[in-house]
Amino acid sequence: MHSAEHDLVVVKLGGSVITEKDRPETLDGPALSAAADAIAAARGDGAAGRLAIVHGGGSFGHHHASRHGVTTEHGTHDAGAALSIHGAMTTLNRFVLSRLHDRDVPALPVHPLSVAARDADGSLSCSLEQVDAMLAEGFVPVLHGDGVAHRGEGITVLSGDELVCRLADGLDADRVGVCSTVPGVLDGDGAVIPEITAFEDVADALGESESTDVSGGMAGKVRELLALSAPAHVFGPDDLPAFLRGESPGTRID
Amino acid sequence: MHSAEHDLVVVKLGGSVITEKDRPETLDGPALSAAADAIAAARGDGAAGRLAIVHGGGSFGHHHASRHGVTTEHGTHDAGAALSIHGAMTTLNRFVLSRLHDRDVPALPVHPLSVAARDADGSLSCSLEQVDAMLAEGFVPVLHGDGVAHRGEGITVLSGDELVCRLADGLDADRVGVCSTVPGVLDGDGAVIPEITAFEDVADALGESESTDVSGGMAGKVRELLALSAPAHVFGPDDLPAFLRGESPGTRID
Repeated sequence: MHSAEHDLVVVKLGGSVITEKDRPETLDGPALSAAADAIAAARGDGAAGRLAIVHGGGSFGHHHASRHGVTTEHGTHDAGAALSIHGAMTTLNRFVLSRLHDRDVPALPVHPLSVAARDADGSLSCSLEQVDAMLAEGFVPVLHGDGVAHRGEGITVLSGDELVCRLADGLDADRVGVCSTVPGVLDGDGAVIPEITAFEDVADALGESESTDVSGGMAGKVRELLALSAPAHVFGPDDLPAFLRGESPGTRID
Repeated sequence: MHSAEHDLVVVKLGGSVITEKDRPETLDGPALSAAADAIAAARGDGAAGRLAIVHGGGSFGHHHASRHGVTTEHGTHDAGAALSIHGAMTTLNRFVLSRLHDRDVPALPVHPLSVAARDADGSLSCSLEQVDAMLAEGFVPVLHGDGVAHRGEGITVLSGDELVCRLADGLDADRVGVCSTVPGVLDGDGAVIPEITAFEDVADALGESESTDVSGGMAGKVRELLALSAPAHVFGPDDLPAFLRGESPGTRID
């Protein structure tokens, strides 16, 4: 049987999962604790191998980004605005680290504003040598959506989803998990689609065509996850333990 | 006359300058404000060109590093210990950023733990694309001594002095300034040596031979600054405005 001991798993904790999305800078404490429990349990029984975590912004980052009109494409040259976005995300990151440390998970922060950059055409560079070294030393790096220096735009938004893809490809991940508020990618009737192998198969159900999807959302997420070499899973919070045990909950995208 | 408009200046604010070194996690508020005043004034009159700042740890980082026995060579695998060092440095960094923002200097944090790594032989890798992009967009990146993932050691210390050298070489800086508690490199009689062009000329005065200097200190600093392509200056806090105006206070090392 395939040993998972040295496998690399990249897992995204959605911002909507770990925060109260409608109330500025409000944690969903029970949801974050449950996620931290699942991560600690998976490490405890050795099932998780090497693990890198990315979390979204939820009511921390999005609130400040939208207040300052900052998106992934439109930036700010106001250092105060950039720092308010980054500072809120750093605060959320510290909550995540704290819950993990409480459960003896050796988590360390990696703040993307400190490492990533975008060219004038928007393409991302993000050195991962530090993440790789942390993993090799037994730590669990925890990244997050953040601001990023973007040539010609100042500081734009770098989403957690974009980071998940960069980590998965850059570190040759074995499995990718996206823990969302929904139990998987849903079809037109609200049922979980068990497997997606091509975007065309689900384009109608997702209600967006390739040409009009600029918003991200589930259609964009599915397209990005299809482009990865590693199999990805989209699932809800209740299925995080199963995913970390090596099972295939929610929607498998490969 | 040479225009300084596009010049890149890298300046180090010593940890002993901006903190009360003998009292754990205590800022030297007036000294930090004076340094921020000098930086804001230099930017206001256009003399400073592009500016990258590095600050040391002083009573913030050193206290935690020494409590956990962490040095540049001996690391920890305790994520809590690593985070206590990093967290203290992040706190100090936020004080520095805040004083700069108060004076309309568009400073942004770059936390080295998030970007740098050391190989098993101790050699440092540190991508600088994000610093370069921030500078190009008119921001003032502010780095600091920090922890760093080090293969085989866990997390070791990355000193502000090492970062100054990495920035100066990696970004082809035009001038380097090291603002220290002393007014320059001192000879055996306590007088400032105006210029150093070779280590042998000052080895006796610095009281250390090349083979026995493992502690860093002024001798190590001088040797590292001599190895840079850019001219460097070591000076005291009172001379920071003169350095930023393009003058040559303290000891010139070239």
